[in-house]
Formats: sequence, structure tokens, C-alpha cells
Amino acid sequence: MLHFGNSKTTDKKPLKVKNDSSTIEIGVVGLGLMGTSILVSLLVSGHKVIGIAPLPADMDGALDRIQSQLNHASEAGLLKEDVSKYLERLHLSENYEDLRNCLLVQECVTEVIAIKTEVYKKITQNTESSTVIATNTSAIPISTLQENVSLPSRFIGIHWAEPAYMTRFLEVTKGEETDEEIAKWVLELAYTWNKEPTYLKKDIRGFVTNRMLYAVYREMFAILENGEASMDDIDKAFRYDPGSWMTYMGLFKRMDQMGLTDYKEIFENLFPQLNNSQTVPPTMQKIVIEKGKGVNNGKGLYCYTKEEAVKWEEDFKNFNHEIFQLAAQYPEINN
Amino acid sequence: MLHFGNSKTTDKKPLKVKNDSSTIEIGVVGLGLMGTSILVSLLVSGHKVIGIAPLPADMDGALDRIQSQLNHASEAGLLKEDVSKYLERLHLSENYEDLRNCLLVQECVTEVIAIKTEVYKKITQNTESSTVIATNTSAIPISTLQENVSLPSRFIGIHWAEPAYMTRFLEVTKGEETDEEIAKWVLELAYTWNKEPTYLKKDIRGFVTNRMLYAVYREMFAILENGEASMDDIDKAFRYDPGSWMTYMGLFKRMDQMGLTDYKEIFENLFPQLNNSQTVPPTMQKIVIEKGKGVNNGKGLYCYTKEEAVKWEEDFKNFNHEIFQLAAQYPEINN
Repeated sequence: MLHFGNSKTTDKKPLKVKNDSSTIEIGVVGLGLMGTSILVSLLVSGHKVIGIAPLPADMDGALDRIQSQLNHASEAGLLKEDVSKYLERLHLSENYEDLRNCLLVQECVTEVIAIKTEVYKKITQNTESSTVIATNTSAIPISTLQENVSLPSRFIGIHWAEPAYMTRFLEVTKGEETDEEIAKWVLELAYTWNKEPTYLKKDIRGFVTNRMLYAVYREMFAILENGEASMDDIDKAFRYDPGSWMTYMGLFKRMDQMGLTDYKEIFENLFPQLNNSQTVPPTMQKIVIEKGKGVNNGKGLYCYTKEEAVKWEEDFKNFNHEIFQLAAQYPEINN
Repeated sequence: MLHFGNSKTTDKKPLKVKNDSSTIEIGVVGLGLMGTSILVSLLVSGHKVIGIAPLPADMDGALDRIQSQLNHASEAGLLKEDVSKYLERLHLSENYEDLRNCLLVQECVTEVIAIKTEVYKKITQNTESSTVIATNTSAIPISTLQENVSLPSRFIGIHWAEPAYMTRFLEVTKGEETDEEIAKWVLELAYTWNKEPTYLKKDIRGFVTNRMLYAVYREMFAILENGEASMDDIDKAFRYDPGSWMTYMGLFKRMDQMGLTDYKEIFENLFPQLNNSQTVPPTMQKIVIEKGKGVNNGKGLYCYTKEEAVKWEEDFKNFNHEIFQLAAQYPEINN
């Protein structure tokens, strides 16, 4: 049993993860693609979920998307009951008052500080002072967002990957003022969601995955723009080399598997050659000017016909099932 | 039909990829784990293969390993005939003269320039002047190695990933003096090996994959050593986020899938925060001093009992089948 927060300002409601999930009510504010995907993950885990649409327009299509995502989860064998049973535990609303019984509220609205701040104000006005508030941001520091939340110690980063109900990824980030006990509670809860959470003890820009991916992006745009290899060839190299083992192990473990002997020398030779640019690659600048939105409008780093884009997303949905099942067969060692 | 090389010094023997593979004889010099793995990939593709052990000791265990790798390939459904049929097309020897009919000789000996140079001398003395010579190096520039080969235009980088017969990865690197036609021939040949080759037009350090991976290594050691996240958590983040889509697509395509809209801003914010170190991370220095060899001696970035190490490698072997089959179901789009 965990108590946390300042005793003068909280009502000391105990948070118990070990409880049946159905007794823990969770709110999700923001019903875009990511929001509904997170919401479905929480429904799948047995929670009662209150989904809040910050704008009336956000309600459009939300229920359809949730149903379709639940069907996807069902086809992947993730559900113990009929889809209808999960929908019974769902309540969609535009009224923040409906969050009143939530122990946790997950925000996933657009990446604009002013908008998020407004959302936090509405959440805190309508929930208990002990309610944990989490953001899905991947761009804004938790410590910055936290400044605008009353009782910032109960504010934390919970960052999901799409599709949230089909990946085990979750990044939990402690802001400067976040209570350590809250972080522990969230991590414990995350395991009940069937996640393998990464705990980020300091609130660094981009968290873990984005920092690592952006380090790759920086290098790969340099290789492309120096005319050393084509976009397609760079993609193939990563798909067929790291893509053939990364589902099985992380990168430190991969180094152990390769035997460690050559790395020191390669570090010495290669680090000084890596790109250290601090500016946006011209290729990306150009796309932004041309309003490329990738698969969404067929105009991106590659071009896609409408048929290709649809087929590709459809295939990826199937792939998601399979990679999820495959990863599940190979649990972590050493932890 | 392709002719290449200097007409004064070569015998203009035409190289035809379209031929039945069994008529193209290929040599592999160096019979370590990587060497036999490459050799098996070539056998599986139907070639007659001459395996040369540069030192008598290298012959120890080579045949056993080849048999076991062929069995692995067979279990994975990669063979059209019995393992014994492939072994009939194999000739292991310590005598470089046996390379005489090879159109291509792949070197995969240790990463020491002097040793490689000695090997190239023996290869060129015992083969036709038109024989293509390839190195599997991942550490030494092709242009450097090429300086020590007579008729350097027929020298090229062909870099494989382990297990060579189970991945579609292959990096083909043109050195400064490599004939463009030779590169084309190798790429064409690589498709007959069931690979998805990446062509590196300029001879950059670390080629494509290593540059990209080392960009990640640099960042992840920084995150670890700054106490921002644990090794295990960093590994989990990469395994469960990129590991859940990388088999399906490369990174440029992933950006297209995510819609491209936020990247420019994140580049601007994140690039200046990334690690630009040029020195070997202390964690790696320490392991080298302590003679850690990862899974090989149980002492690495993680520690492994002997049982764990064996079980883990065994699991990885099974995983290899499955990821190979899975990737095969989702062919490339846009190329």
C-alpha cells in the first residue's frame, strides 16, 4: 500500500496496484490515433476507462477507431472476453467531471505547452489531489510541463509507442519534482499492462528511444546527403541487419553476443568520423516546405500511391500481430 | 556479358551472373565462424565453394561447423536438396592453388592489414587476373586494402552479417579504384544469393550499418554513464520500440509512416543535445581491461552463467528462423 503526496493537500487515498485492474479507473484525455490506442491498451488490461475529447470534433470517429483497434487486439489473441465486454467498461465524454474517480489520467493531446497546460488545469479541477497525471509527450521536458500542474509531485511522463496495445514498449520519465513513489507505482502498474517499461531517472530531452533514434537519423541523413548510399539502400541495411536481431535483444546485449573484442578499436576509429551536425538536414527542410506528410498524403521521403499506402499500412497491421507474438516467445534474460 | 579489368593484364574471361550458380566457383579464405557462415550461404545458393584455411589450425572444427550450419539452414527450409548434396560441392583445403577456377574469392580473415595483404598476395598468385577479390572487413577501408592488391580494380568490399545464410543483409562497398562494372556484377550476383544488398558508392569508415549503429552506441553509453537510465532499460526501450517495426521497414520509411510533421522541430531541439564524444566510453574501457568477451566468457556488459549463455544462443538460433521467414512475407515496396 502506497501513500504519497503532501499530507496537507492530498486525501491520502491509497493506491494499490495489486487490486483487480477493473477497480482502477483511468482517464485518457485526447482521442487522436495515439490516444485511442492507449485507451484500448488500458481497456485490454481490464481497466474502466474514461476517454475525454478536449474538443467536440475529437469525438468524431473516436468510437469507430476504438472498436476497430479492439477488433485488431482480438484477432491478435489479446482479449479474454468479447469486444463488447471491453466496450462496457468504456465511457467517452467531453466533460472533465467524468474523470472524478480516476486514479490516473493520461494526457495525449497535441505537443503545445499552452494547450497541455489548459488540459492539466481542467484535470486537476475535476479530480482528487492524489490523482496521478501523466503525459505522453515525446518532445517537451516533463519538468517543464510539471511547472504548470498543481501538486507537481504527482505528475509523470508515460510515453507509449503506436499501436499501444500491441507493443511492450513504455517509457516512464521522472520529472525533477516527480515523487519517486509515484514512479514506482506507475512502473508496477505498467507490468500489469503487459509492458516492459523503461525507467528514465532523469528528465532528458527525447528520453531514451528518441535520443537513440535521432542519433541514427543524424548519421543516416549525412550518409544520404554525402552521396555515399541511396535512401533505399540505407533503409535496407538497417532493415536486414539490426532488423534481423533487434526484436530479440537490445544493443548492449548484441555487443555481448558479438564478443566485445573489436569494439574499443572501432570506437576509436569511428567516433571521430560520425556526424555531429546541429542543424536540420536539407532533405528534411525540403519536405517540410513541400508539405510532405509521408504515407498520409503519399508525399514523403519516398512517394506512395494511395493503393501502396493502404496496402502497406494493412500489411503493417498484420506484421504487428506476428512480431508481438514472436517477441513474447523470447522473454528477457538477466532481469 | 561483362568484360572488365585492364585488357593488357586480364584474360577477359566473361562473367555471367545469369549462368547456373553451380558453374560459378567461389573461394572463401578464412574458416572462422563468419567464414564458414558465408561459405554455407554460397553453398546454399548452389555454388561450388573452395574453403581455404590460412593456418592449419583453422581447419579444426571447420567441417563440423559447416555441417551444423547446413543443418540449421535445412531446418529453416532453405535447402532444395539433402545436406549431403551441398557437401559434395564443397572442397576444404590449405592449398591456395585450389582457388584456380574461382571467379570470386571472399576473404574473411582477422582484421589486421598485414595479414590480409599476405592473403591477397597468395590469392592473386594462384588465380586468374580477372578473379574478383572481396573482403568482409567492417573495420578497414576498402581503398586502403586495395592498395596492396595487384590489379586493384577487381577488389571490392562484400560485408556479410552473421548468420550469413539466414539474413538478407549484404553491404557492397566500392573502393576508390574498384571498377564500377565489378560492383554491378557483385550486386547482380548478390540477388541470386537471396540478399537485399546495400551499395555503398563511397568508401566511408564503418560503411552504412556500422556508422548508424555506432551513432547509437555513442548516445546509449552517454545515457548510461550520465545515470539517466540503466543498461537493461536502454536495451528494453530499443528492443520493444524499434524492435517492433524494424524488421518491417527501414528508418526513412518509418519517418514516412509517422507522418513527418514533427521531425523538423525535434531535429532542431534534439540534435544540439546529442552526444558528440570522440573517445571510448569508460564502461567499454573497463571491460577491455577486465578481458570481458561477452557471451563467450560470460563476462560482458551483462554477466551470464554458462547455462544462460548456451540457452540464449540456442534461442537465438530458433529466433533466426522465425524472423527470416517473417521478413520474407513482407517484401520491399518502392524499389
